[in-house]
Amino acid sequence: SRQLYGYTGLTLAKWSITILIGILVGLVAYLIEMCQEFLLTRKKELTQRIMVNGLMLSFIGFASFSVLLVLVACCLVLFWAPSAGGGGVTLVMAYLNGTDIPEFFQFKTLVTKIIGSICTISSGLMLGQEGPMVHIGAAIASLMTWIHGALPTRKKTQPSHLRRCCKPWQAKALPFDLYSDKDRREFISAGTAAGLAAAFGAPIGGVLYSLEEASSFWSRKVMWRSLICCTFATMVLALVNSWEFSTSLPGSMSFREVQPVFIVRDLPLFLVTSALTSILGVVINSAHAWLAHMRPSSSYKVLRIIEACFVTLISVTVMFVLPLCFGQCMEVPAQKTPSGSTMDRHYWFRYTCPAPNTTAGVHYYNDLATLFFSLPRQNMQELYGMHGDAETEFSIRSLGIHSLSALVLFILAYGIATPGGVFMPAMLVGASFGGFLGRIFQRLLPSAHVQPGLHALVGTAAMLGGFLRASISLVVITVEGFGGVDFILPLIVAIVVSNWVAYHFHDAGAYEADLERIAGVCFLQSEPPRELIAFSAADLMSSNVVCFHEVVTVAEVLKVLQTRRHNGFPVLRHTHSDTSNGGGKFVGLILRHQLLLLLEERAFVEIDPQVLLHTQKYAWENNFSTNMQFLDHAMRIYHHFHYPHHRYLSSRPEALADLGVDEIVGAVNSSNSKPGNVSDDINTTADAPKKVLALDLRPFMNRAPITVRRECSAQRVYIIFRTLGLRHLCVTDSHNKVIGIITRKDIAMAQKQGRLSKDKRFQHWDS
Amino acid sequence: SRQLYGYTGLTLAKWSITILIGILVGLVAYLIEMCQEFLLTRKKELTQRIMVNGLMLSFIGFASFSVLLVLVACCLVLFWAPSAGGGGVTLVMAYLNGTDIPEFFQFKTLVTKIIGSICTISSGLMLGQEGPMVHIGAAIASLMTWIHGALPTRKKTQPSHLRRCCKPWQAKALPFDLYSDKDRREFISAGTAAGLAAAFGAPIGGVLYSLEEASSFWSRKVMWRSLICCTFATMVLALVNSWEFSTSLPGSMSFREVQPVFIVRDLPLFLVTSALTSILGVVINSAHAWLAHMRPSSSYKVLRIIEACFVTLISVTVMFVLPLCFGQCMEVPAQKTPSGSTMDRHYWFRYTCPAPNTTAGVHYYNDLATLFFSLPRQNMQELYGMHGDAETEFSIRSLGIHSLSALVLFILAYGIATPGGVFMPAMLVGASFGGFLGRIFQRLLPSAHVQPGLHALVGTAAMLGGFLRASISLVVITVEGFGGVDFILPLIVAIVVSNWVAYHFHDAGAYEADLERIAGVCFLQSEPPRELIAFSAADLMSSNVVCFHEVVTVAEVLKVLQTRRHNGFPVLRHTHSDTSNGGGKFVGLILRHQLLLLLEERAFVEIDPQVLLHTQKYAWENNFSTNMQFLDHAMRIYHHFHYPHHRYLSSRPEALADLGVDEIVGAVNSSNSKPGNVSDDINTTADAPKKVLALDLRPFMNRAPITVRRECSAQRVYIIFRTLGLRHLCVTDSHNKVIGIITRKDIAMAQKQGRLSKDKRFQHWDS
Repeated sequence: SRQLYGYTGLTLAKWSITILIGILVGLVAYLIEMCQEFLLTRKKELTQRIMVNGLMLSFIGFASFSVLLVLVACCLVLFWAPSAGGGGVTLVMAYLNGTDIPEFFQFKTLVTKIIGSICTISSGLMLGQEGPMVHIGAAIASLMTWIHGALPTRKKTQPSHLRRCCKPWQAKALPFDLYSDKDRREFISAGTAAGLAAAFGAPIGGVLYSLEEASSFWSRKVMWRSLICCTFATMVLALVNSWEFSTSLPGSMSFREVQPVFIVRDLPLFLVTSALTSILGVVINSAHAWLAHMRPSSSYKVLRIIEACFVTLISVTVMFVLPLCFGQCMEVPAQKTPSGSTMDRHYWFRYTCPAPNTTAGVHYYNDLATLFFSLPRQNMQELYGMHGDAETEFSIRSLGIHSLSALVLFILAYGIATPGGVFMPAMLVGASFGGFLGRIFQRLLPSAHVQPGLHALVGTAAMLGGFLRASISLVVITVEGFGGVDFILPLIVAIVVSNWVAYHFHDAGAYEADLERIAGVCFLQSEPPRELIAFSAADLMSSNVVCFHEVVTVAEVLKVLQTRRHNGFPVLRHTHSDTSNGGGKFVGLILRHQLLLLLEERAFVEIDPQVLLHTQKYAWENNFSTNMQFLDHAMRIYHHFHYPHHRYLSSRPEALADLGVDEIVGAVNSSNSKPGNVSDDINTTADAPKKVLALDLRPFMNRAPITVRRECSAQRVYIIFRTLGLRHLCVTDSHNKVIGIITRKDIAMAQKQGRLSKDKRFQHWDS
Repeated sequence: SRQLYGYTGLTLAKWSITILIGILVGLVAYLIEMCQEFLLTRKKELTQRIMVNGLMLSFIGFASFSVLLVLVACCLVLFWAPSAGGGGVTLVMAYLNGTDIPEFFQFKTLVTKIIGSICTISSGLMLGQEGPMVHIGAAIASLMTWIHGALPTRKKTQPSHLRRCCKPWQAKALPFDLYSDKDRREFISAGTAAGLAAAFGAPIGGVLYSLEEASSFWSRKVMWRSLICCTFATMVLALVNSWEFSTSLPGSMSFREVQPVFIVRDLPLFLVTSALTSILGVVINSAHAWLAHMRPSSSYKVLRIIEACFVTLISVTVMFVLPLCFGQCMEVPAQKTPSGSTMDRHYWFRYTCPAPNTTAGVHYYNDLATLFFSLPRQNMQELYGMHGDAETEFSIRSLGIHSLSALVLFILAYGIATPGGVFMPAMLVGASFGGFLGRIFQRLLPSAHVQPGLHALVGTAAMLGGFLRASISLVVITVEGFGGVDFILPLIVAIVVSNWVAYHFHDAGAYEADLERIAGVCFLQSEPPRELIAFSAADLMSSNVVCFHEVVTVAEVLKVLQTRRHNGFPVLRHTHSDTSNGGGKFVGLILRHQLLLLLEERAFVEIDPQVLLHTQKYAWENNFSTNMQFLDHAMRIYHHFHYPHHRYLSSRPEALADLGVDEIVGAVNSSNSKPGNVSDDINTTADAPKKVLALDLRPFMNRAPITVRRECSAQRVYIIFRTLGLRHLCVTDSHNKVIGIITRKDIAMAQKQGRLSKDKRFQHWDS
């Protein structure tokens, strides 16, 4: 029964949840995609129909509809779920790296994100659904674990700390206890991967993206969970798609057969395309950073709404005016006449071009209008499909105008208060610009058989490399979603060149820059930064450490908790020989939330102040009885399973307020006047004249914290910190005295300082 | 200049070497493939031609040719490069996990492996080239770094240890210093990936394989290096292939269009196929383990040769006799007549079937003979291409006989003394068996539209899952090399089911079992084994620790080095207060090779025995002068760069013999009689009456070794050990006294013990 219920049951529940997450993510992806396609296609048709009555009227209709959609999204975000704004990828990354973001995975955020994404993308703003899908996937995963975590596993009736510390044992045996930090992180990693996989229809790419970019803690188990989740998400998407009318699933590219020889020959041209496109990516980054100061702060909600509407209006205006002025009317290619697939019928947009000549079977379309009014994914498919034969489908002028105006619109839209990602717009700008360059090469070098479609592909990769500084997972996503493995070499060239070019302008990609801009988020990369190479642990640590003794008075604990915001406190033990040296041996680490828990449960010990002084001076090994050993064992389990639960909660000011500090202080005072009243366990000797309330930290502290020596190299400290997912690392000297403590913030600060003082001195250290 | 030479030059050199490795691996892969195809095709044609003169004659010719090839491979391995035998994947894994294997990456091993693989595979033995390609890729990568490491970077003329420890500084500035352990490991990881990528034509699969299976230490840099290397390997292979006649490059599969709906409907059948096929994998593992005891030991070289020849003879006999008895003559399918591609012309093997009816354009082939005599890859392509229409191409009987006899031949061949991998034969057996089951389902359920080709694919994955216990990378390789992403769900089902089934029979896959069988290899998996969950550091450690003091007499060092085989020694410092407790503070770690180096360089300090006793009693902080601080800094750099170089060398007995122990003992004795003779640096005071030679370990020891407390959980110890790539981890108590030391062997032993005593107690810990 236990075999089935405890072990197999939990495993089964986890895998069911994984599959459920995958299915839900797939359904949501389908919902978003369908709504987007439905709304955009309908808008296109409507515009075309109204255009008979006049261009102005159709513009007004289109614009008001778009503004309305953005208004809905904007209001939802600003007044209901503020953390649903933006892409969300950066914050998912930060969460998986170990930073808590309040409200980020709540239900209202999820709903807002889904509705807002549909509205934003359908409005014609240059924002995509890929970033939101990552957030949505993570939020769905988080909610699934919350649902199970909300089942009652722990009641608050047990007063004794002895019984308390045995409880996690039993709680673990419950079948659905998924509410541990590690489990949640695993599920959220999987959800993240599934979100991206569903957005691109690329399961393996989703796993790799999660591995390379999003998830900081990775294991084989997470990989499996992610793969299963991604597979189900894409499978469900494909299934539902095959039942429905939509055909916009990726993977139906029409590259011409390409020999590897041609690819090698074209490499110089690919280099040029990559370099130029990645500069566009750098421009986006710089302009975004510059605009971030100009935008209204999020506290002025009305201003934020006006801004969003204004940007939408500009977008719509550009979409309408530019094709009117610069668009070219072209014939729909023969193999793609409306008799073709459903996608093609809606894709080519006539706009102001002449009506189709039905007798000759010739249809006309405005190429610039088609690029502006269609789904980005359809655009990219057409761009990648551009053959080398002649200037068909899109003219050089239209491609140039589209790529540059889309760039401007994207920069404007990137940062407004609606949900929306930067992934797809960046790809579209890159593809359009790459295609533009490809067309130019084609005209300049008529004998070289340049394929503009391949340049569009290279441009896409180079834009992502230059803008997001992302690397291999993108190669895989692009390869998997849009083409074959044959194109991997140009893609790698694009990624390498674009990263290299962008490196000379910015330190970090858009995600990293965003993370740095958000206060309170310390993102630790997987590799130790080379800025730390000349530092040691002593340089990183903050030496102002607040320590406790093994047995400490309640008054002292309260004073420290009220005046300090630290989360971890080293616990010291005085031995006889240490009195002269000052400070005791480092024997353990106690966390703020553990102290709060002890205070909340009134797990006090009553003790004589003289005895207290005495106990702190001499070793306690003697009375380390069987009972204590049991406690020790129980606490090891406690640390193993329940350590991370309340970590975040305890750092908020409310946690202290909830404690009933007044009551405790009263209890302390009263116990000082009339002894033997409040305590519930050990040593209740009523005849002692004057006692103080104290906490015995020994059974509760982490008795085996990792420590490093002051001489330890900072890079090694970084690796220890990062791989073990630590929050506090105590630095000791050879006498085992605490001389400092290192936290995430210390490392992030040292890294920042090191980067600022980046000078010649460090260059020969590189490799 | 330094910018160009030091930093950029090194980076450039590294990338050039990466690309060079990729190109070389691609060329070698092409060489092996071409030779194999050439020899096999020629053998087939020859057999067909001789067959006119009689079956017996052609059998004798075929058999003698095969035995000759195996004889060459066998002799090369046994008499020249013993470590080239077998697949090599396990040992590459062990190397990348941190175990040194002598001669494994030498030039003669590489040559033997290449020639031996060609011979073995062409002989018709059931062995593949994928495992050897992994070894060859790793060996090429290793040789490339050795070539640069062999450039003179360090001369032996400097006598003083003061100058010595500054040298690594300058050595680092040399442009081509790639001879550090970390760099080598990176390149070997990349080479491993490239080997597999070239063997399968799947660059991303190669990277994933290296990440998941082979490489224990992984970073973004390694990922990039591997991807570039893989890309170049496959690109070169594709380029050369497109120039030459060979067309056996994978990726040209002909699956029928499959709707996801069908796949979901067929899932139960896939489950059956997976389960049954994975049992075959289990059978291979068990039979191999059982046969391993029966085979002659590798010291009886003649017996080994006879064994190999015997197995070859059996294989050839089976290949000839079975098609004769059970093969069916079938018509070559219409779309695959000899007028088709080059592959098809050679593929279908007539054997004893009637001559082609050229007027009707009908050609005949023996299906079982075709399966036995063709390249495994071609077989698999045809098996995967089996449509659901009717029983064409291969009959049920032939598939059944082929899969089972191939299984037996594979078991026999797996373990003989020639190079050859188990990857491709296992895949072939799985594909054949899966196809067999698919054909049966097709006959039993005529209305279900079963596709035997899909079952062959599932069988392949299930065999790999059951036999090698490999997982995601294999999905990717199979998907990438042979089909589209559409088949990912059946593949995942196959992998999950087969791993689950195999788990109930064996603890580990073939690679892991092989690793356990090889003595002296402690392979640490990436996840902490759950057997360790109830242990603490105190349970793992060996408490019998040999320690040194900070200043130690040469005689003592020599005695310890001669009597103990340990590689790391904690260094202690006595302070005044510790005299009563016994043992001193733990202040550093000195390695065996460092001690050997110090002895070799005669970096002695002459010291009064009384002073020595005295210095050990009191703290040395006072005379920690600027000079010492400089030394300290220099040693930190020394540890950073040159720490791993001589690690392996020092553990061999010759290292101590090379030292000139007699000479040192003589020096010690002579210095005891007439002082002030041998020392070269500090404190040469001729008037001291009686002095001893001592080593001052302080500037050379690792002053910041990682330590853990005895209470630390064993799983955390495992994680620290594994992620930081440690070899010695000292366990301390709260007084900073060394109470034990943990090495790789200790962890592996605890793991083994834990696995043996796997009982009910641990089951509720699982998740």
